[in-house]
Amino acid sequence: MRNLTMLMDYYELTMSNGYFIHGFQDKVVVFDMFYRKNPDDGGFVVTAGLEQFIDYIQNMKFTDEDITYLRNKGEFSEGFLEYLSNFKFTGSIDAVPEGTICYPNTPIVTVTAPVIEAQLIETMLLLTINFQSLIATKASRICRAANDAGSIVMEFGARRAHGGDAAIYGSRAAYIGGADATATVIADEMFKIPAIGTMAHSWIQFFDSEYEAFKAYAEVYPDNCVLLIDTYDILKSGVENAIRVAHEVLEPMGKRLKGVRIDSGDLAYFSKKLRKKLDAEHMQDCKIVVSNSIDEFLIKSLQKQGAKIDSYGVGERMITSKSDPVFGGVYKLAAVQNDKGEFVPKIKISENVDKITNPGRKKLWRIYSRETGYGLADLLTFYDEEVDVTKPYAYVDPIKPWKKMKFENVDVKELHVPIFKDGALVYNKPSLEEIKDFVAYQLDNLVWEEEQRYENPHTHYIDLSKRLYEVKESMLESVE
Amino acid sequence: MRNLTMLMDYYELTMSNGYFIHGFQDKVVVFDMFYRKNPDDGGFVVTAGLEQFIDYIQNMKFTDEDITYLRNKGEFSEGFLEYLSNFKFTGSIDAVPEGTICYPNTPIVTVTAPVIEAQLIETMLLLTINFQSLIATKASRICRAANDAGSIVMEFGARRAHGGDAAIYGSRAAYIGGADATATVIADEMFKIPAIGTMAHSWIQFFDSEYEAFKAYAEVYPDNCVLLIDTYDILKSGVENAIRVAHEVLEPMGKRLKGVRIDSGDLAYFSKKLRKKLDAEHMQDCKIVVSNSIDEFLIKSLQKQGAKIDSYGVGERMITSKSDPVFGGVYKLAAVQNDKGEFVPKIKISENVDKITNPGRKKLWRIYSRETGYGLADLLTFYDEEVDVTKPYAYVDPIKPWKKMKFENVDVKELHVPIFKDGALVYNKPSLEEIKDFVAYQLDNLVWEEEQRYENPHTHYIDLSKRLYEVKESMLESVE
Repeated sequence: MRNLTMLMDYYELTMSNGYFIHGFQDKVVVFDMFYRKNPDDGGFVVTAGLEQFIDYIQNMKFTDEDITYLRNKGEFSEGFLEYLSNFKFTGSIDAVPEGTICYPNTPIVTVTAPVIEAQLIETMLLLTINFQSLIATKASRICRAANDAGSIVMEFGARRAHGGDAAIYGSRAAYIGGADATATVIADEMFKIPAIGTMAHSWIQFFDSEYEAFKAYAEVYPDNCVLLIDTYDILKSGVENAIRVAHEVLEPMGKRLKGVRIDSGDLAYFSKKLRKKLDAEHMQDCKIVVSNSIDEFLIKSLQKQGAKIDSYGVGERMITSKSDPVFGGVYKLAAVQNDKGEFVPKIKISENVDKITNPGRKKLWRIYSRETGYGLADLLTFYDEEVDVTKPYAYVDPIKPWKKMKFENVDVKELHVPIFKDGALVYNKPSLEEIKDFVAYQLDNLVWEEEQRYENPHTHYIDLSKRLYEVKESMLESVE
Repeated sequence: MRNLTMLMDYYELTMSNGYFIHGFQDKVVVFDMFYRKNPDDGGFVVTAGLEQFIDYIQNMKFTDEDITYLRNKGEFSEGFLEYLSNFKFTGSIDAVPEGTICYPNTPIVTVTAPVIEAQLIETMLLLTINFQSLIATKASRICRAANDAGSIVMEFGARRAHGGDAAIYGSRAAYIGGADATATVIADEMFKIPAIGTMAHSWIQFFDSEYEAFKAYAEVYPDNCVLLIDTYDILKSGVENAIRVAHEVLEPMGKRLKGVRIDSGDLAYFSKKLRKKLDAEHMQDCKIVVSNSIDEFLIKSLQKQGAKIDSYGVGERMITSKSDPVFGGVYKLAAVQNDKGEFVPKIKISENVDKITNPGRKKLWRIYSRETGYGLADLLTFYDEEVDVTKPYAYVDPIKPWKKMKFENVDVKELHVPIFKDGALVYNKPSLEEIKDFVAYQLDNLVWEEEQRYENPHTHYIDLSKRLYEVKESMLESVE
């Protein structure tokens, strides 16, 4: 495993050295990782990346070269460098399980640890969860659009991914979000995501004719033959040569042409033409695969036009989340433990109202309707609060704090599970298939359709316990 | 070094196995890597990533585990698996030096190699050059905007990068494109890009008051004290506490407050207010640093409003190239060597006219005005053509092929340099500083200002030799 310990912002080190010099290294703090806005103005996100963050924590190690490099910066005390060379994460981390559907301003990960430890893990925590959640969320949008019309999605993005990790972990996140397969071989080798692929245009160009290229391919892969038919002219040559290979090469062997793929042209027009032509040749089982700048918006447009597409190869617009390529997860101090062991809430106000944080060491709960099973709202409370819904539970909607709100006839679930406890991993990591199934289960059973809409989805309620609301208000007032 | 050999599209392997089975493994082909559209509708790109691509080629190795994994796919012949287990790149690669300013539809990299080798390196070639060129180009746009008003740019993007490689190599590419420093520690350790950083909001929140937090920081870093002043209220508390620390803590030590940073609020308004306030305190040398969703468009807007900003911390919009996060580099077959050793041109036509390729084994030349020194046009010729500009040189502008065009009073330079020759590295890799300087030199001396504009830049001419034009036309006609 690569050692990415030094992949951190420099200020993590300047601050940590500062805490060390001032004698605060044992001071325990609480940080929340959360985000403020759903990508693509969607209704939720699919969280992902927890497994890789766990791996990072377990492998953190400042090497002798790292220490030498840091010493040469001339800014760090020898005591701090000694501390780093013995560094081991000893704190506790709670998080929502990977694949959990989440909403803005609720902690996806909460870190309770000595301040230096909590600070040094910030960059990789954000980087890991931000990227994979971005792609899992985008993939979920694209795959839901495709699945609505019975089509499947293959992730084809490696060449346009932002580097090797983006290709590898983007493929993992896309699978979590709903992709059925990947073109990226290493993602299959590492994560058992089915890798698929047949030919590029170069295969067709290499041979003296399109027919010879198709024939050569069919001879090697009679059981899995999908032909790329747009190198020269889809209707005049591509599909004709594909049909000829089906009849003349494959069918005499008792095999069928699995599919044809187009990567250019008007996908709606050509897919309909192709379906008719293939059906007329008794090739109803020959799938139509399309690629070329596919995303959820194009898929919905193609469906409206009655396109006949079985399978989408989705590349750049999924692996970069092109329409909204930034997942803005942040990591904010929520509390500092005092000498009595109490967690004193901390708040950040800033000049932008939407950047005000929820103070305190907290718990995150989800409230479900007993009637429908759907999640009605998320609820934040202090860590020492319990939520008893056997009787009506009074809470505050921070957008309409004057309204008397009560949860009735609901179930409640605490969303965080312990990941690390005092430095020890206490979590059984689920398999990738389990994570993928968990996402699908939530979307099928627990998340309102109104939140799954693409345009103006319902805004999930994020409510506060009365005590948390009152503490936050009094902190805001005391600063002003 | 990580082994990313298996980071490839599955079709590279299915095609290669097909070539192997059909006995084509020694057939030499030519592939061009090029792109079709400048990101952000700019006038050019800053190419980057060649060094990492070279590293990849030199480290390619299919391990026993890789072979076992592939065998279990049940699609590959034992002969091919044996071939892979002994794989070593034996071909030749020509490319423009890293940092070269490039234009659409001109080969950045040309690979001449046995077909399987040429195919197996496709994914990593594209992934590596696409990503770093994207970020170098975006950084160049952002840094030119900032530099125009005498400001500098610091790359702050790790937490929003698309995974670890994007943070690390994105930082490298941003430096090539013009960034002055990075927040990412590992980029300094690996590439000597100056790492900088001071504090997050958490440092301020951790202490009982903003003043105490600033004081604690100044005591540890009296020589390099930049204070983040927007945790509570910039004008009412942040700048007041910073000034107090400057006067009460730093100045008695003979030190100066280096800067103040704001990460929220109206950056134009606050920067002007801050400048006045600091100047009135005889703190003209205290820099104003801003961050928060900065890009070239915001920088230009801030400049128009007379903002007083010395330094921009640029994160998510640079490290993801948010406004255009896909660099669409492609890799297309241009020629296949026949039994006589001749390179037979190959063309891809497709249903989209803009996807038609330039056939043949080619050379890429840049034509410079003798008068101004600026690059007038790029010229593509066949590999065996020379361009003699001691007399007027007749060429074809493919957009206006009927016009009789001649280059006169020009200099000409071949842009490709040999990188690998028959599998051996024959290139002395320049240092990162040399690459960065090369970019700056070209922009200062060789690239028209009209191409450096952000809106509707001049479109660089991409011309063809008469012979190349004629061959391309006759190939198009013969297919139709």
